[in-house]
Formats: sequence, C-alpha cells, structure tokens
Amino acid sequence: MTVTGIFDSTFQQQLGELLEARRDVRSFKSDSISDEVVAELVAMTRFSPSVGYSQPWRFVRVDSPQRREAVEASFKVASADALASYSGERAALYARLKLAGFRDAPVHLAVFSDDETDTGKGLGSKTMPETLAYSTVMAIYTLWLAARARGIGLGWISILDPGTVERALDVPEGWRFIAYLCLGYPATYENTPELQRVGWENFDARSTHLTVR
Amino acid sequence: MTVTGIFDSTFQQQLGELLEARRDVRSFKSDSISDEVVAELVAMTRFSPSVGYSQPWRFVRVDSPQRREAVEASFKVASADALASYSGERAALYARLKLAGFRDAPVHLAVFSDDETDTGKGLGSKTMPETLAYSTVMAIYTLWLAARARGIGLGWISILDPGTVERALDVPEGWRFIAYLCLGYPATYENTPELQRVGWENFDARSTHLTVR
Repeated sequence: MTVTGIFDSTFQQQLGELLEARRDVRSFKSDSISDEVVAELVAMTRFSPSVGYSQPWRFVRVDSPQRREAVEASFKVASADALASYSGERAALYARLKLAGFRDAPVHLAVFSDDETDTGKGLGSKTMPETLAYSTVMAIYTLWLAARARGIGLGWISILDPGTVERALDVPEGWRFIAYLCLGYPATYENTPELQRVGWENFDARSTHLTVR
Repeated sequence: MTVTGIFDSTFQQQLGELLEARRDVRSFKSDSISDEVVAELVAMTRFSPSVGYSQPWRFVRVDSPQRREAVEASFKVASADALASYSGERAALYARLKLAGFRDAPVHLAVFSDDETDTGKGLGSKTMPETLAYSTVMAIYTLWLAARARGIGLGWISILDPGTVERALDVPEGWRFIAYLCLGYPATYENTPELQRVGWENFDARSTHLTVR
C-alpha cells in the first residue's frame, strides 16, 4: 500500500458508518463462514496496536461440540447467578434478554492473552502489566470491525468463568482468558445497541464529555 | 445513515489500509488541532462496544502545563526504572528509543474507566469486572482510528504510575487510569511499527496462528 497522510472524506464517513453498524450480535443465520475468511479476519489483527509491540493475542477456534458445550454450561451458570442479583422488573427484563448465540453461530473463537510472552521484551508494561490484556482487546476490536465490513457479525460473551473456559479449552499455562466470540451472518443488521432497543440501557453522555484539567 | 449489510470491497481495502497506517506516534508537528475536531473525535467513541452498554470511558483533556509536567515526571521515573531492568545492547537500544511525544503534541488526553458507573446495571461484568476497562480500551481504539482517518496521529503512553496520574489530574474516586494519549499531526506517516523499524521487536506469527480445539 501507499503511505498517505489523510484518508478522504468519503472514507471518513464510511468509517463512521462502520463503527455505528458494528453491533454485538446474538442472533445468527445458519450460513457458514469459510475457513479462508476466518483466517483472513485473524490475519488482520497483525495491524493492531500492542504495548511494546508484544502482540500477545492468541486465537483458539472452538470446533469440538463437547468443548462448546462446556463453555455454554459455564455461561448458563454465570447467567443464572447474574439473574439472581436482579429483582422485580429488572430481573424480568434480564430473563428475557438473549445474551449469547452459542447454538446458531457457525464459528466460535476464544481469545487469550499470553501473559508470559517475551515478545516486546516487557517494554511499556512494567508499571501497567494489564496493558498486555488491553492489547489483546484491541486485536479483538480489529477483527470485529474487519468482520462487520464483510457483513459478518460478532458477539462477545463475558458471562463466563475464566478458569472454567481455560480448562475446557486446555490452553497453555500463562494464557489469560479475555473473550469468547461467536461469529456468523447476523439474522438482522442493526445500528443501535440491542440493550438500548430492548430498554435495558441508554446512551450515557458522560462518555463523550470532555473534562478539562 | 442507512442500514447496510455489507460494505463494498473498496471500503474493505481502505479499512485495511487505515488499520495498517494507524501507528503509535511519538513525533509530532507543531500544528494545532481545533477544539471542534477534538470534540468530534471524542464523540465518535459513542459507537464503541461496551460490556452491558456501560460506556465507562471518561476523557480528560490535560491543558495545564503544571499537570502535564507532573505526568511527564512520572514517565521519566518509570522509564528510568525500566532502563535499569535491561542490560548490554538492549539497554543501549532502550536508551535511544523515543517513547513519548509530551512536548510537541498539542493535545493531551488522559483516559479513565469509571469502575463505579451504574450505567449498564452491571450486565456482563460480574464474572469479569475487567471488561469495564476493556470497554474503555476499545473506546480509545475507536478514537485512534477516527483520528488517523483525519491524518491525526496518536501515541499511547503506559510508562506511568497510575496512582500518580490520578492524583496529578484530580479525578473522581472510582476512575481507573487506563491510558495517557498524545495527539497531533505526525512528523512522518509510517506503515510499520516504530519498534520494528528501530530493531526492538519483529512480527510474532503466534498472534495470527489459529489453534483448533
């Protein structure tokens, strides 16, 4: 590619549209995603920022039905615990939410951060070791945007016990569980967060307020 | 905007170019960035994913020279500590690195995550409370990409003591320091990581390898 200073205004606008169209998807069509496309999406993460160029993200594709079930079982336990913490209308609303698309998503990816990687030689992470996990989070977002640009939806599942997932997937020591991702073609394309559409939460203006110091 | 399923292949290619052109920038031109553009970049973070739609990111624009100096002083202490942990050629290389552009960057943004926000009602973060910080990290990446699309560079500084920064900027209880960002027009546009260009680290193929389970 060519090194260019500024992308044109058409691209800038389309980027805004992509950011807005990127949703957390929990309802998928049954259409499969080719192995080539999955590999291409994972390959895009090579452009993600990482502390000290540590590139600590590790992707595990979960194909085994038994392992998928073990992860879903952890989700069911954690979600039942969460439900028990709400009461009244909020509990009723929680019970109606669809929070994961385990069964219909053709591709499951578990993402880990290698806390013990020597890549990057520890640069930048001595006072803030959590920046390794933060780097992995940005790799996930890279994949998420690249997927959505191709019409593929992604749902991030965090209602899980990290240790249970690490054991279920038999990953190396030192790999920290960051996210479980379900990918597939969305049942519908939406531009507003599902949690807003169903009345769980609204835009919080504090998030775009600029405090000056 | 229109809800569309798939962005075209031209856009997909340009998105790849943007991801590749997004660099961590430490050398800036002295050109200022208008307040309107800064506000526009922060406004773009409203499209970022967040656990339970919690939107916990809080942006602080650091204008006071005294506060900027307090942050830079923390950087100098942490960077000297880091230098002391390397030896030989690696130490010599570390000493030559330019790791931050405090002095030439016209805009400084400190980013915090509000661990005590009620927005989102705790959805999705009970088993993994760190997902609040992860959400804030994705807001930073949204801003980073939106900035680069406009030709603006960003450098993320993590070689800091979080407590020192929180005190220097006098932020509310419960705000967790995530990142200190320097923004400005880059001295040069680059497509490869600076740490690769100077011989600190290379691409790690483990980051794009797909383990199957």
